[in-house]
Amino acid sequence: MSITAANPIGIFDSGIGGLTVVKAVHASLPAEQIIYFGDTARVPYGSKSQFMIRKYAQDDTAVLMKYQPKMIIVACNTVSALAFDVVEETGKNIPVLGVLEAGAELAVRYTRNKRIGVIGTRATVASNAYPCAINRLDPDIEVCSSPCPLFVPLAEEGYTSHPAAEMIAEEYLRQLIDHGIDTLVLGCTHYPILKRLIGKIIGPDISIVDSAEAVARKTREMLGEQDLLNSTESTMKPHLLVSDLPQKFKSLCELFLGREVPDVELVEV
Amino acid sequence: MSITAANPIGIFDSGIGGLTVVKAVHASLPAEQIIYFGDTARVPYGSKSQFMIRKYAQDDTAVLMKYQPKMIIVACNTVSALAFDVVEETGKNIPVLGVLEAGAELAVRYTRNKRIGVIGTRATVASNAYPCAINRLDPDIEVCSSPCPLFVPLAEEGYTSHPAAEMIAEEYLRQLIDHGIDTLVLGCTHYPILKRLIGKIIGPDISIVDSAEAVARKTREMLGEQDLLNSTESTMKPHLLVSDLPQKFKSLCELFLGREVPDVELVEV
Repeated sequence: MSITAANPIGIFDSGIGGLTVVKAVHASLPAEQIIYFGDTARVPYGSKSQFMIRKYAQDDTAVLMKYQPKMIIVACNTVSALAFDVVEETGKNIPVLGVLEAGAELAVRYTRNKRIGVIGTRATVASNAYPCAINRLDPDIEVCSSPCPLFVPLAEEGYTSHPAAEMIAEEYLRQLIDHGIDTLVLGCTHYPILKRLIGKIIGPDISIVDSAEAVARKTREMLGEQDLLNSTESTMKPHLLVSDLPQKFKSLCELFLGREVPDVELVEV
Repeated sequence: MSITAANPIGIFDSGIGGLTVVKAVHASLPAEQIIYFGDTARVPYGSKSQFMIRKYAQDDTAVLMKYQPKMIIVACNTVSALAFDVVEETGKNIPVLGVLEAGAELAVRYTRNKRIGVIGTRATVASNAYPCAINRLDPDIEVCSSPCPLFVPLAEEGYTSHPAAEMIAEEYLRQLIDHGIDTLVLGCTHYPILKRLIGKIIGPDISIVDSAEAVARKTREMLGEQDLLNSTESTMKPHLLVSDLPQKFKSLCELFLGREVPDVELVEV
């Protein structure tokens, strides 16, 4: 079957953090049908092994492929960093956009002093994928990374302006600030929830790159190039698939999506 | 095949937190062969749905059953609370001991004023399983519970005496202290790592029930009753099975087991 503009955009993440990407893409391209899969049964990925992350990435892509997407967006930084090729392979000939690639591109555009900071999960930082992607675009840029493993639980627990969260954030970010970065990439879909707290610590002179917005921009560009932008005027509601419906699901969804939870379907992986 | 004293003791947990139980059982019964399974590929369970926790509990028990254990210990509080019957069913006629049951029993023995506090994951606390188990033993005891969702990530990140951890612990425990409890059950295998911090906040007048120790005591009792205690003099090394080997595995193992990592085998679930 051939792919047309009417086919949906598939987006996946390890959990529901990727809903920040759904929100940004939907705001930028309201006529596009978005199918989102969040692997809530196996979240988080960031603390697991590369082997397991690659296996999960394959499963996640397979879930989306059933909906014949015209493109796949990897909203998970960990998968973008460690298993992008697995998604491309499983997705056959469909274009794939990784949140990491989009974020790296925007950071390179933002920086003036060629010093970029990147924060993410342990797995993302250890993979060295952001420095590689940034240096592919500009080899003269110095990238300084710091893993912030407590940011995901703090964000999910709503500790967005708590003094304990501020204390932890200060420790995580100190080294990057001292390094003289002028741009900071939020290399995890959960981190935009802590954006205000992070901004307070790093101050107004360091630009923050929110990958969700970078992805939305790049998606429009990629679909436009391939003549796959949907031209209908109607607004499509995103369709949500998850592998588990935990107790906190509704409140987490609202936290990330910033509005009422859309239709949700439970799928097995 | 019939079960004899020579068969191993099977222990499982959602991740490697249950190694605190392995440590306590091994110290108490060094001649017993222990087979431990930690579901590190799908950890944590505490934030997931009851449906998924029950499915995982069945898988975990099935992994241990291949080793023909003479008893199964559920080191995971969340599984103890929400899927104990699934383990019993999957384990056929083998005796099953849950960390929750053992902890409840010890707490009832400790309390003088009949006010017990319980802390655990969201899923454990929401299940109401500790109050039920405690009130089955003594209906006059008042149980006050508080979920402490940030304790697991704080423990795993080694924030065992950090001021931010102290601030968060103070908030979690305040209500229990104000309630006048004289006994506090650490209803999650990770929490013993924060025992000193918790003790500092609740003060010396509140007794702490560490379920790992309670389990070790109860295991000896159960095996003794059934004439299944191993009488050999030799010390057996615990055998470790995991479903993933994440980057932090070695340091986490040492954190929980307090010594070098024993032989580890990777299994698929």
